[in-house]
Amino acid sequence: MARVVVDVMPKPEILDPQGKAVTGALQRLGFDGLTVRQGKRFEIEVDGELTEARLAEIAKAAETLLANTVIEGFTVRVETEPAGVA
Amino acid sequence: MARVVVDVMPKPEILDPQGKAVTGALQRLGFDGLTVRQGKRFEIEVDGELTEARLAEIAKAAETLLANTVIEGFTVRVETEPAGVA
Repeated sequence: MARVVVDVMPKPEILDPQGKAVTGALQRLGFDGLTVRQGKRFEIEVDGELTEARLAEIAKAAETLLANTVIEGFTVRVETEPAGVA
Repeated sequence: MARVVVDVMPKPEILDPQGKAVTGALQRLGFDGLTVRQGKRFEIEVDGELTEARLAEIAKAAETLLANTVIEGFTVRVETEPAGVA
């Protein structure tokens, strides 16, 4: 079973109110000098073999459903280590 | 300016309603055999030099504010390429 990770982030020119809120909260908690942008991470378990065609299909799915490409950019990558985020 | 990425994902034993909704939507759109878990990605721009102490501080910030460690796991890593998600 292969794992593909899709990262979706607001485009640089787009305001990011969630990230701004987190940045402000960090400052109030005493963590200075940190600027945060917040996006989404999708971990996709793929049944069967991960071919080039399958990966292209996942990129299409990311573009269609996972990212709003007007305001968000996304990257698709195959995760080599099986563990992922602990 | 260094960039640190914090990935926050629901723990494996925790239900993930967002991921389930995305999995169902992908199936209805004809993308079969994909199981999705959804989490968050934080891109943090760090002012000044990124020392070990600074990185430990960011890990502490992630634990305090970015992740709910009861139900979520997180990873902190330094991003080497400056571009990030397009």
